[in-house]
Amino acid sequence: MTDSKDKASNAMWGGRFAAGPDAIMEAINASIGFDKRLYAQDIRGSRAHAAMLAATGILTSSDAEAIREGLLTVLSEIEAGDFPFSTALEDIHMNVESRLKALIGEPAGRLHTARSRNDQVATDFRLWVRDQADAAIAAFDGLIRALLAQAEAGADWVMPGFTHLQTAQPVTWGHHMMAYVEMFARDQNRFADARKRMNESPLGAAALAGTGFAIDRHMTAEALGFDRPMANSLDAVSDRDFALEFLSAATIASVHLSRLAEELVIWSSAQFRFVAMSDKWSTGSSIMPQKRNPDAAELIRAKIGRIMGATVALFTVMKGLPLAYSKDMQEDKEQVFDAADNLMLALAAMTGMISDLTVNRAKLEAAASSGFSTATDLADWLVREAGLPFRDAHHVTGTLVAMAEAKGCDLPDLSLEEMRSVNPAIDERIFGVLGVHNSVASRQSYGGTAPDQVRAQIARWKERLA
Amino acid sequence: MTDSKDKASNAMWGGRFAAGPDAIMEAINASIGFDKRLYAQDIRGSRAHAAMLAATGILTSSDAEAIREGLLTVLSEIEAGDFPFSTALEDIHMNVESRLKALIGEPAGRLHTARSRNDQVATDFRLWVRDQADAAIAAFDGLIRALLAQAEAGADWVMPGFTHLQTAQPVTWGHHMMAYVEMFARDQNRFADARKRMNESPLGAAALAGTGFAIDRHMTAEALGFDRPMANSLDAVSDRDFALEFLSAATIASVHLSRLAEELVIWSSAQFRFVAMSDKWSTGSSIMPQKRNPDAAELIRAKIGRIMGATVALFTVMKGLPLAYSKDMQEDKEQVFDAADNLMLALAAMTGMISDLTVNRAKLEAAASSGFSTATDLADWLVREAGLPFRDAHHVTGTLVAMAEAKGCDLPDLSLEEMRSVNPAIDERIFGVLGVHNSVASRQSYGGTAPDQVRAQIARWKERLA
Amino acid sequence: MTDSKDKASNAMWGGRFAAGPDAIMEAINASIGFDKRLYAQDIRGSRAHAAMLAATGILTSSDAEAIREGLLTVLSEIEAGDFPFSTALEDIHMNVESRLKALIGEPAGRLHTARSRNDQVATDFRLWVRDQADAAIAAFDGLIRALLAQAEAGADWVMPGFTHLQTAQPVTWGHHMMAYVEMFARDQNRFADARKRMNESPLGAAALAGTGFAIDRHMTAEALGFDRPMANSLDAVSDRDFALEFLSAATIASVHLSRLAEELVIWSSAQFRFVAMSDKWSTGSSIMPQKRNPDAAELIRAKIGRIMGATVALFTVMKGLPLAYSKDMQEDKEQVFDAADNLMLALAAMTGMISDLTVNRAKLEAAASSGFSTATDLADWLVREAGLPFRDAHHVTGTLVAMAEAKGCDLPDLSLEEMRSVNPAIDERIFGVLGVHNSVASRQSYGGTAPDQVRAQIARWKERLA
Amino acid sequence: MTDSKDKASNAMWGGRFAAGPDAIMEAINASIGFDKRLYAQDIRGSRAHAAMLAATGILTSSDAEAIREGLLTVLSEIEAGDFPFSTALEDIHMNVESRLKALIGEPAGRLHTARSRNDQVATDFRLWVRDQADAAIAAFDGLIRALLAQAEAGADWVMPGFTHLQTAQPVTWGHHMMAYVEMFARDQNRFADARKRMNESPLGAAALAGTGFAIDRHMTAEALGFDRPMANSLDAVSDRDFALEFLSAATIASVHLSRLAEELVIWSSAQFRFVAMSDKWSTGSSIMPQKRNPDAAELIRAKIGRIMGATVALFTVMKGLPLAYSKDMQEDKEQVFDAADNLMLALAAMTGMISDLTVNRAKLEAAASSGFSTATDLADWLVREAGLPFRDAHHVTGTLVAMAEAKGCDLPDLSLEEMRSVNPAIDERIFGVLGVHNSVASRQSYGGTAPDQVRAQIARWKERLA
Repeated sequence: MTDSKDKASNAMWGGRFAAGPDAIMEAINASIGFDKRLYAQDIRGSRAHAAMLAATGILTSSDAEAIREGLLTVLSEIEAGDFPFSTALEDIHMNVESRLKALIGEPAGRLHTARSRNDQVATDFRLWVRDQADAAIAAFDGLIRALLAQAEAGADWVMPGFTHLQTAQPVTWGHHMMAYVEMFARDQNRFADARKRMNESPLGAAALAGTGFAIDRHMTAEALGFDRPMANSLDAVSDRDFALEFLSAATIASVHLSRLAEELVIWSSAQFRFVAMSDKWSTGSSIMPQKRNPDAAELIRAKIGRIMGATVALFTVMKGLPLAYSKDMQEDKEQVFDAADNLMLALAAMTGMISDLTVNRAKLEAAASSGFSTATDLADWLVREAGLPFRDAHHVTGTLVAMAEAKGCDLPDLSLEEMRSVNPAIDERIFGVLGVHNSVASRQSYGGTAPDQVRAQIARWKERLA
Repeated sequence: MTDSKDKASNAMWGGRFAAGPDAIMEAINASIGFDKRLYAQDIRGSRAHAAMLAATGILTSSDAEAIREGLLTVLSEIEAGDFPFSTALEDIHMNVESRLKALIGEPAGRLHTARSRNDQVATDFRLWVRDQADAAIAAFDGLIRALLAQAEAGADWVMPGFTHLQTAQPVTWGHHMMAYVEMFARDQNRFADARKRMNESPLGAAALAGTGFAIDRHMTAEALGFDRPMANSLDAVSDRDFALEFLSAATIASVHLSRLAEELVIWSSAQFRFVAMSDKWSTGSSIMPQKRNPDAAELIRAKIGRIMGATVALFTVMKGLPLAYSKDMQEDKEQVFDAADNLMLALAAMTGMISDLTVNRAKLEAAASSGFSTATDLADWLVREAGLPFRDAHHVTGTLVAMAEAKGCDLPDLSLEEMRSVNPAIDERIFGVLGVHNSVASRQSYGGTAPDQVRAQIARWKERLA
Repeated sequence: MTDSKDKASNAMWGGRFAAGPDAIMEAINASIGFDKRLYAQDIRGSRAHAAMLAATGILTSSDAEAIREGLLTVLSEIEAGDFPFSTALEDIHMNVESRLKALIGEPAGRLHTARSRNDQVATDFRLWVRDQADAAIAAFDGLIRALLAQAEAGADWVMPGFTHLQTAQPVTWGHHMMAYVEMFARDQNRFADARKRMNESPLGAAALAGTGFAIDRHMTAEALGFDRPMANSLDAVSDRDFALEFLSAATIASVHLSRLAEELVIWSSAQFRFVAMSDKWSTGSSIMPQKRNPDAAELIRAKIGRIMGATVALFTVMKGLPLAYSKDMQEDKEQVFDAADNLMLALAAMTGMISDLTVNRAKLEAAASSGFSTATDLADWLVREAGLPFRDAHHVTGTLVAMAEAKGCDLPDLSLEEMRSVNPAIDERIFGVLGVHNSVASRQSYGGTAPDQVRAQIARWKERLA
Repeated sequence: MTDSKDKASNAMWGGRFAAGPDAIMEAINASIGFDKRLYAQDIRGSRAHAAMLAATGILTSSDAEAIREGLLTVLSEIEAGDFPFSTALEDIHMNVESRLKALIGEPAGRLHTARSRNDQVATDFRLWVRDQADAAIAAFDGLIRALLAQAEAGADWVMPGFTHLQTAQPVTWGHHMMAYVEMFARDQNRFADARKRMNESPLGAAALAGTGFAIDRHMTAEALGFDRPMANSLDAVSDRDFALEFLSAATIASVHLSRLAEELVIWSSAQFRFVAMSDKWSTGSSIMPQKRNPDAAELIRAKIGRIMGATVALFTVMKGLPLAYSKDMQEDKEQVFDAADNLMLALAAMTGMISDLTVNRAKLEAAASSGFSTATDLADWLVREAGLPFRDAHHVTGTLVAMAEAKGCDLPDLSLEEMRSVNPAIDERIFGVLGVHNSVASRQSYGGTAPDQVRAQIARWKERLA
């Protein structure tokens, strides 16, 4: 990048492209700048293809061996950082092939028998996306474990359960953490489904119509870990729905990440102080000791932007493209690369933040207790134990809350006499549901916030992950 | 709608809301205008809840019976179109409950025991989306059958296989149709996966924390056809990922629909004339007999816009919302309603168009034969049968194409002598691969375009659908 | 809507369309369900067209008069709610024309001379969008006035200025309100620019090529309030960039609305209590008196979802459409209708909320004073007045903050001696910048938060709006 | 990039981040990888700030001179490619500042007086986006000139005017080109409006509240070419609407580009052959001489994907962010960089393609003549000249078309007698409108397709550009 890149000139080509048509065409057409990232998949696919060509007698075994060794050399050159990528050679396939030819000569040309760049790139990209699905599945495991550890520590820590960011009913910290375990587990599951659906091999579809060579597509499919070859060669080179599904799953996951990140940002404000971020995940001020900016949480919250942006981008690119391959489809990779990188980064950072999070249990509990958050427990008790109709129970509750408010105390601070003065059906058992600890303990319905329920959920998850 | 709605005035409320705050708040807050569509799900959920409350002894059986009968009355009133929906009652839940109370009195209030609008709406909406997933799965079956019928009729009709909308290699009509069968089958599969993942019951999560009533969530889950209750009450009322996944699957499907629609539009142009739309799916001109506008295809092509738009909308709404319920989430339904309606409409219209499509076999074949579309077959033969290196094979092919072009004929029209003058390794077997019929017949690799391969695919699918 | 609409059946058409192709085609093709909203614009355009046809002698004046009166009759029928819209007549143009014919007979047919549905719908839609731009411009005026009123009341109320939702430096309430005035004023300006750019008349472009009738396009343009006729008839019927620009401006505005709404939600939490929503814009709990759910703010925050969704939808629809009119473009209206309605609703609700907002000045000030928020003022003073290098100033400040923290007091509570013990260059003038009131008063740079600056901004805006 | 980057491992950090929290935090937090692109703007802003600090006496002139020279040295180091960018220094501001300190020592620290990274980055980014707006404006000029040249060459070349990709009425090549001139001119205009609106200086807003130093914001604004300083410091550091507006304008432009690109792809198909791409903008096949893949057109068509994706990304990032700066906003730059780069690239490539395009005039004219494309001219003539009511004119036309179809000829090939046998009102003047040349010549309405009208448009544009 140089300054001139960003300046307009008065040349026909608008400055940035003073070199004229060739420079523009190379800039818009060449993909090596990004698809070199597929080198391992490309070489892996070529090795499988060559081995199959030899096994089916299309290639001599000496040619196949030369190709195999040549490809391994190319691989090690790239991994060592010694490989001279060439933009003139446009893409990763041509770069590898050209280097292979320099290394082993004529047999290099035979590698392309019964294959085309169309099925080659479809294969490479599928392998790459599959690797990312695996990486995502592993990363969710890490995040779920971090959340479980938090949940286990605070299975009975009381905190406000919010609706509309207003205190509604007390819940436990563990319960809140476990809600995210459920969400991220569904995300993980989505990637597993996507992986399964994409795990078919395009290799051997050739340009679009299949080939007259007597190839064995099942053999290459197996060699590359695919469940089977794709059943239609036109479909194999034309569709990118596996990438769209990966992107969609990533966007859904990024919604969940953004919600947890938002909570962390709000919870670490001076007004909430529910949690304190570790220094590793925040930045401070040299002169304002209490200021700790939740940078990582904010950046995670933001990631849904670029991940959904990538999803929209590829959907839009694919809209209305006639079969089979169109050059538009070259725009598929950068979007998926960027979305995958940022998803993995966000998952790693969130896992770290959750692991390092300091929770202010006292603040949580104090907040849970304000605002008569157990008024619904009182009303429920009146229905359940005292047999009052719902409407009457609400009326009694409202009266008691007003009484407490007038006295400047909370509901459990009212005496039994005071309560019975409002409705004599109330007895001493009422104190068993008032107060935030009683409230959460009482919510024993399956999946409820009672510490026992939360611990049962945690146990189930730990077993599942074991 | 009146004219004044669209005119600005100089009142404080910008004309449209001259009635002031109450009218604005009602307009922005009430959901009955759209969520009345959930009435069947809402009543179904309430019936299951009441039956469970009775079974667990929380409700008397006489109350439960009164509720059951009252709900059936409400249902029949709505289905008869006699139900007076009220905006003042805000949403479908309150509308139903209020009418129930008018019908059966006090027991109506008890229906709300151990339940909240938060778990109620989550349940209703899940049931609705699940119904739509089922409807989509059925609709894909119909479309796949229509494509199979086309594929079967034209398993050996030769047409141009395009890349970059340029003729690349001949394929068969059946092969092309079967490519879409594969795509739509994956779409169908995606809805099946989504349905499975969403099929858990939120009911009993109550406001967010669960309840102190001894309810049986497994019972209501079973009654509503769910596989199990959701394991975390906060998650149950907070998440809408099931809707996001439905929308994502719909958007992927709409990509496939847009591609087929685009092909139909191009294929029915005067320049292509590959197909002719039935009058049912197009509009004509009273004075230009050949003009037949492919309206339905164009509208199907456009549907990806609003379906992706709905997806983006809900992703954006859900970004960064703290748990549990926030009012923002009320924006979930209209997006899913619109996307589902339009997906179903597009699938129905596409199924009809494909079923009624007239294919111009002669035009397809003529187009396939132009442009030396079997040049790659010739080159492949030289490699495969004459043992030429790839590069030499390409050189020989180029020379022969130039010769044919100079003579104004196609490759199979050259004589053996002419061909041998370029390379003597060519023998009469060459004519076995030249010409579009030979070309397609030769592509016998698994999933290739050879009619035998295509028929095998068709047979496999017919068996699967049987 | 009936139940059957949402149920799958086993009919070929997937249940919802049991009636078969005709019903599907009507459902996908007819636009009268939504474009009837253009009736006033359609009739206005027809009246202008008829008047021009008469003026240019293409129509007799008696025909023109019959058309004019007929159109007025149709208009009043629609406004009275008496007009029988027919789906079979597809769109608003045909509905109006058909009714006109029933009213006045043959001359109705002549109205269509030198016009086509293509330029007619482009004209109608432009007029509608222009009306909405005007409505938006007026609505921003109202919102800006409401913000100015808040700013004026609290020009010197101190509150925390946040970065990363952490207290950074004190600012004033008025300054914060005025930041939004600037944003919404730019939004208003964007609509004004869009209006100017779209204000050209498509009428007379006919189907796409212009017409051989000697029409006067300048005359119709003027009659409809357009600045001029569009200069290219193909462009006139093909483009919808005016709608895309309207949607883009609406989405940018909805970002600003979402930010202010988010602040209101956070500020009304129990932990912040900076503001209290009026009952008009929130909902309460019958038994939890302090719970006031900021429903309107949450719904406004959510509106960016559907407005951006609509924008994405229309961008996607328009992608890659060849000139001139394609049926895909019929999908333009619903998106713009929905976005415009929701933008206007959100602006009205926000205006109301801001007008009715109760600000807790004491809470704001207390929050501003916590966290040593004037430490940067101290450091700046050391640089500015005591001539310390930046780094030394920071070191001294850090030491003083630590001292105050150890004493459990704020910076202005330290004595001069204590401060001078850290650095003797400090003198009594230091108290002039410590404390949040001094801090804000000192920020006198243009556009800064000093009350004088804020009041100057307010005065400038009031003059501008006068 | 190394292989390990894309592999999952079993380490806590999911493989890719084996190095643990520090590596993750650096990866998610540091922006130098992309914001180094702002170096010229950053240095320019710093120079203006230093000069102002000296002019206002806040900085000594010797310090200011040292800073000025130091900054110029940094600039030349970066432009020479010698600058060691450091990720540990996070962003471009710190990299420049740190190098400046190494070069000139203590005065470097004084450069930060009365400034913060918040107003600094807002200024840098605004300057960058403004440069891009200028570049876009220049690039549209180039594209418009290329289209004008095509229009001028083919002002009277007849081609089919399509609706629904069906031949509707003949138009001229020049008319079609000029439609795009109108569209791109509006795009250019949009960037001009955006530039004007964004051209205010954030510099001096400091962290968010302004500053107590007696700075002169008007002076820095002027030095940087801004029209004025921004009026509210909170707004200055909080908003990114200038970037959103730039992105929106870019997305609208990319719609227009995608439409023209789609036409070029369709027009260069074997079935259309309206145009032939130059070799510079397409790729061929070594063995299929007629195959010329329109790669550049396809890639331009695809660009709307990533440009709209970037727009959606930034809208989503900005949703609901409280004032003032949040770290989420760091995600703004990459999106705008990518969108701007791709827009400029697409504009340059389209300009080149249009300039180098070979038009097949004979094919255009032949296509225009098919399908009775002048039937509407005949009907219009019957109304206009023979005074027939519209309905009768259509009936007569339909009969004549059927007659021509039966004879296998076009309308102008019918004899006058044949025509008069259908309706005697027809006279020899009818031949003046039949035939595609007569048809286009007759469409003399303002903005119509008549060559005279087209030439008038061209002349107007040439004058405007002169």
